[in-house]
Amino acid sequence: MSSSQHLDKLIDSLQLMPGIGPVSATRIAYYLLDLKREEGIEMARTIEQSLQKIALCPSCRNYSDDGQQCEFCRQEKRRQSGLLCVVENATDVQAIERSGSFHGVYFVLHGRLSPLDGIGPEQLGFSSLKERLQDGTLKEVILAVSQTIEGNATAQFIAAMSRKAGLEVSRLATGVPIGGELTNVDEHTLENSFNYRRPFD
Amino acid sequence: MSSSQHLDKLIDSLQLMPGIGPVSATRIAYYLLDLKREEGIEMARTIEQSLQKIALCPSCRNYSDDGQQCEFCRQEKRRQSGLLCVVENATDVQAIERSGSFHGVYFVLHGRLSPLDGIGPEQLGFSSLKERLQDGTLKEVILAVSQTIEGNATAQFIAAMSRKAGLEVSRLATGVPIGGELTNVDEHTLENSFNYRRPFD
Repeated sequence: MSSSQHLDKLIDSLQLMPGIGPVSATRIAYYLLDLKREEGIEMARTIEQSLQKIALCPSCRNYSDDGQQCEFCRQEKRRQSGLLCVVENATDVQAIERSGSFHGVYFVLHGRLSPLDGIGPEQLGFSSLKERLQDGTLKEVILAVSQTIEGNATAQFIAAMSRKAGLEVSRLATGVPIGGELTNVDEHTLENSFNYRRPFD
Repeated sequence: MSSSQHLDKLIDSLQLMPGIGPVSATRIAYYLLDLKREEGIEMARTIEQSLQKIALCPSCRNYSDDGQQCEFCRQEKRRQSGLLCVVENATDVQAIERSGSFHGVYFVLHGRLSPLDGIGPEQLGFSSLKERLQDGTLKEVILAVSQTIEGNATAQFIAAMSRKAGLEVSRLATGVPIGGELTNVDEHTLENSFNYRRPFD
């Protein structure tokens, strides 16, 4: 218990955020009260407004400002690349963008097929993906979904849809990570990187 | 840059909180968007409301719900103890409460005398402290301010005010922390604990 019920509520509610436990929440609450009250109110308004206004891009289901296409789909160059990269989560887009290794457009599933959890084609936006695959702007679909059983099922499904639309389909290479020690690589990855070994040049 | 300007703003503004850098802010933003959008909006409203409604207790300057006395000052038993503990920050009250070692009332300065930073008696609420000392309910003032030059100056000042009001004045004991290794104790603390050594019983 603290000296104020509102303060208790504040400390409680901050713990909604991942990685923020009671100790951090208390520290943050007193910090805002002691030093950044106005800025804290401003932050709270931004959080509320952002969470209300961020919607899904109608073209790729990535997060975008409400009703509008996202920053990536709006770029002419990316649209003209003919490359569509399918990912499971919006954070995957961030990781790919950080690597700077892809300059096409994305499609974000927000999950992977998992019938037992009630996640089917509808939840992953497959109907809008199908439209996208058939709109005549694409050449290749790159599957960047996870290397898991459910990820593989999802990949199979999308690959079939893409081939039906006459598109090339590829999947991200699997193997030993750059800078990784062989000792620490799991057996499935190792098996995979033997199977898909390539000529040394 | 992310896919949405609102998302960029959200990630930026979360970094107001201490201990939240760009990586944590991004993780929190996507977590709220992906899984806890409604709860996140609720959290933002609680933050805004709390920061607007938390005020200073008119009796002790600890944080309290607006206009009201704080939870501690409202307790009859604490008021009747005749003990007033003066601390620098509201977080100090939390620490003392956690220890369970004090059952009187508090006075929170929200700082310590520091003329160079423009913190004088007025900023620390000395006039309301003076009233408190003279209201006839107290027997002893316990100084729990920091062991620093400015803390000492603050302590001297309050001690003089308290004695003038006919009250006993004490200060928290200094010495080697419980469980502390002598090797790791700084020289001032050690000197202090030699000077204030006590009979072994």
